[in-house]
Amino acid sequence: MSKLVSSLREAVALAGLRDGMTVSFHHHLRNGDYVLNMVMEEIARLGVKDLTVNASSLFDTHAPLADHIRNGVVTAIQTDYMAAGLGKEISRGLMAKPVQFRTHGGRPSAIADGTTPIDVAFIAAPSADPMGNCTGKFGKSACGSLGYAFPDAMYAKKVIVITDNLVPYPLQDWSIPEIYVDCVVQVEAIGDPKGIVSGTTRITRDPVGLVMASYAAKVIEHSGLLQDGFSFQTGAGGASLAAAGFLKDIMLAKNIQGSFGLGGITGYMVDMLQAGCFQSLLDVQCFDLKAVESIRTDPRHQEISALHYASPSMRSAVVDSLDVVILGATEIDTDFNVNVHTDSNGYIMGGSGGHSDTAAGAKLAMIIAPMSRARLPIVTDHVTCVSTPGKDIDVLVTQGGIAVNPKNAGLAARLKDAGLPIIGIHDLKAKAEAMTGAPKPLRKGARVVAEVVSRDGGILDQIYSVPEGQ
Amino acid sequence: MSKLVSSLREAVALAGLRDGMTVSFHHHLRNGDYVLNMVMEEIARLGVKDLTVNASSLFDTHAPLADHIRNGVVTAIQTDYMAAGLGKEISRGLMAKPVQFRTHGGRPSAIADGTTPIDVAFIAAPSADPMGNCTGKFGKSACGSLGYAFPDAMYAKKVIVITDNLVPYPLQDWSIPEIYVDCVVQVEAIGDPKGIVSGTTRITRDPVGLVMASYAAKVIEHSGLLQDGFSFQTGAGGASLAAAGFLKDIMLAKNIQGSFGLGGITGYMVDMLQAGCFQSLLDVQCFDLKAVESIRTDPRHQEISALHYASPSMRSAVVDSLDVVILGATEIDTDFNVNVHTDSNGYIMGGSGGHSDTAAGAKLAMIIAPMSRARLPIVTDHVTCVSTPGKDIDVLVTQGGIAVNPKNAGLAARLKDAGLPIIGIHDLKAKAEAMTGAPKPLRKGARVVAEVVSRDGGILDQIYSVPEGQ
Repeated sequence: MSKLVSSLREAVALAGLRDGMTVSFHHHLRNGDYVLNMVMEEIARLGVKDLTVNASSLFDTHAPLADHIRNGVVTAIQTDYMAAGLGKEISRGLMAKPVQFRTHGGRPSAIADGTTPIDVAFIAAPSADPMGNCTGKFGKSACGSLGYAFPDAMYAKKVIVITDNLVPYPLQDWSIPEIYVDCVVQVEAIGDPKGIVSGTTRITRDPVGLVMASYAAKVIEHSGLLQDGFSFQTGAGGASLAAAGFLKDIMLAKNIQGSFGLGGITGYMVDMLQAGCFQSLLDVQCFDLKAVESIRTDPRHQEISALHYASPSMRSAVVDSLDVVILGATEIDTDFNVNVHTDSNGYIMGGSGGHSDTAAGAKLAMIIAPMSRARLPIVTDHVTCVSTPGKDIDVLVTQGGIAVNPKNAGLAARLKDAGLPIIGIHDLKAKAEAMTGAPKPLRKGARVVAEVVSRDGGILDQIYSVPEGQ
Repeated sequence: MSKLVSSLREAVALAGLRDGMTVSFHHHLRNGDYVLNMVMEEIARLGVKDLTVNASSLFDTHAPLADHIRNGVVTAIQTDYMAAGLGKEISRGLMAKPVQFRTHGGRPSAIADGTTPIDVAFIAAPSADPMGNCTGKFGKSACGSLGYAFPDAMYAKKVIVITDNLVPYPLQDWSIPEIYVDCVVQVEAIGDPKGIVSGTTRITRDPVGLVMASYAAKVIEHSGLLQDGFSFQTGAGGASLAAAGFLKDIMLAKNIQGSFGLGGITGYMVDMLQAGCFQSLLDVQCFDLKAVESIRTDPRHQEISALHYASPSMRSAVVDSLDVVILGATEIDTDFNVNVHTDSNGYIMGGSGGHSDTAAGAKLAMIIAPMSRARLPIVTDHVTCVSTPGKDIDVLVTQGGIAVNPKNAGLAARLKDAGLPIIGIHDLKAKAEAMTGAPKPLRKGARVVAEVVSRDGGILDQIYSVPEGQ
């Protein structure tokens, strides 16, 4: 018995794909992913139309989706993140139906409860056996964790595994078990290793970034949370990584035994594990080769599903136990609402990912961002798009001062006592505007091109088209 | 945030347990289990009545269930196996409603598809953290795999984890993740280590057993299946273990690289893994301490859920890829139907467990049994109870000859060529009866006391009450 089929075309036919259905993809191969394009090209050739694409994230490598939209193959998109290339086209009005943005926790929740049913899930698997047991830990296209693919595999009506490393049954140390898999397709390559993970993620050397990072580490140090059992998530941006570096030094100096590091995992988090700052890493996605090597070889570094990471509708998720998260922003307003969906001209160039989920779960949710970018202040009266509501954000760290959300008065007092440069968010806005000037208000286009769905399923905001010339 | 509650009573109340509901239990603590009795006693004290108990197996230690049945606390039982103590009472007519017997694959299938919904699942966990991540690999009551508990955790409306080893969050190397768990109760002890696993399982020294074991190994050797990639399951009975020992010698002598050993795992299977006979062990339940040690420390030895082991309604299960299984029987008839539910007097003293599942899946399903037991021949015209249908059985090995199911003519020819003592099943019956005399026919009682549900959900047979004096 084997579930191997001879081609992607045969797999799609066996899955019974028809007009109007939903197909899904995960994004662990990131900008090196070949699978989404390969599958959509085959589907287009088969003449199937009017599909919904539900992808955990979309990168610039997925630019061919624009043609599938123009040709009516794809008429709806659900995703947690969209890079600037496709984002720009969507913002200019490429699609009739608004894109639905969810979060990395809201997506699996909506899949599990039937809000966004999946007809056929395509799992890009760096290793698989002929019955469909598969993993991201091994193979020439190794990407580490397959965390975001779990809900797709568990709940889709049909599940197709696509691999470029077929191994004899049974694959050892599988992530997704055969019980969910309908068929397996072997292809030459599922991705370009250079795009799948960066060789290494890099700490910033920019002086402004280092100042912010140092403040961020001190905020954590004096937050009251940095004690034995401490848990932490940070992104892969240069300043966030630098903050993790400073935090590591503080933890080692104070001999603090943390419990876990969470999230998309970088080599810097692996360093912290190995240095004894954490007991475990809980990993929904690997960002670099060091993280991939670690999840493959270190039993303390464990894969978690997107459901386990962040779903608000399971009995609990790891984000509910998180102490501190460091997050980014393209804008933050004086109510601490954060935008990570659109750029300074209003074009889509991102998405929540795990932003809202970790902000909601963590005891301390910190935004780290420079006071201004491209001569535009980071603090505004109202963000262009609410990606994460201000009620879930505790503090904004910039090189020009640290603004604490008034809801967390205790934190403000502790940081002031520690001698950190606390500043009101309105003052911070004024300080930035004194340097950059007040920004011109953005013009909104006439159409809603995307909806931001909050992690628990409500409509958080709408994103409008960008008018010509902006 | 924590899901810890102060007592079992509080957990049961929080779960909203009411009259008429279904509670479930798993059996990895085997005859050392304290949890089922502890929970049922608390439920009885709370005055809840008319419950269905869905337990993956019931052992003699669960004898107090009989009183709960007499008192109306429990009015229905669903299980895959029932030891002789409770079995005798059921056979004498203790319950108004027939017991429903399923298989280790059929049970998770029926739970997943809603045929046997569970209101509250109780998970006995040798280690757990305060959010409910739990495992059987560590702790004073370590039992290794928690495979049978997965469907209960995944599909029950409420899930209560009961542990005697609470560890800080997050537990490393969890089996069942927190996403399914509603609350966690800490107790003094979930079981008696002496009853949880035997210190060691023992190879038979009985000459008859050794003859059968040697034949069994030779049947496998000449079956055409013993080649690289070979996969194997055997039980924990003395002759089955001896057969595994002989098979190991053959595999090593012939330098055969098998793929996996499956099932309830004993130290003998661990020896075969370590000797290089297999690449992996896939483990739904550990039978002895050596297996527990191995699953904890050897990454080639992996836990599988009951769904992954044997469910006929998932996209596939490991049994579908199995080459050879060695199974026992209390009776086998001339159509190769096998009874593992009742003893020679018709009393319930067992159940299918994984018998039917592996027989259906394996390319070669072998029964190993002595020609007679207690002066009763093993082969009969019609088994008292059909536990596994004859269509799924390939061969019966006894010390008095090897009977091949006529459906598998190729196998009979190969074994004959190899010089093995092949005998027709009718001749084997006559040969046994020449020694023991023809058995007296069993008398059937008036009532159906149990139904045998086949792995795919049909009624395979009914078990009748045993009349007085039999």
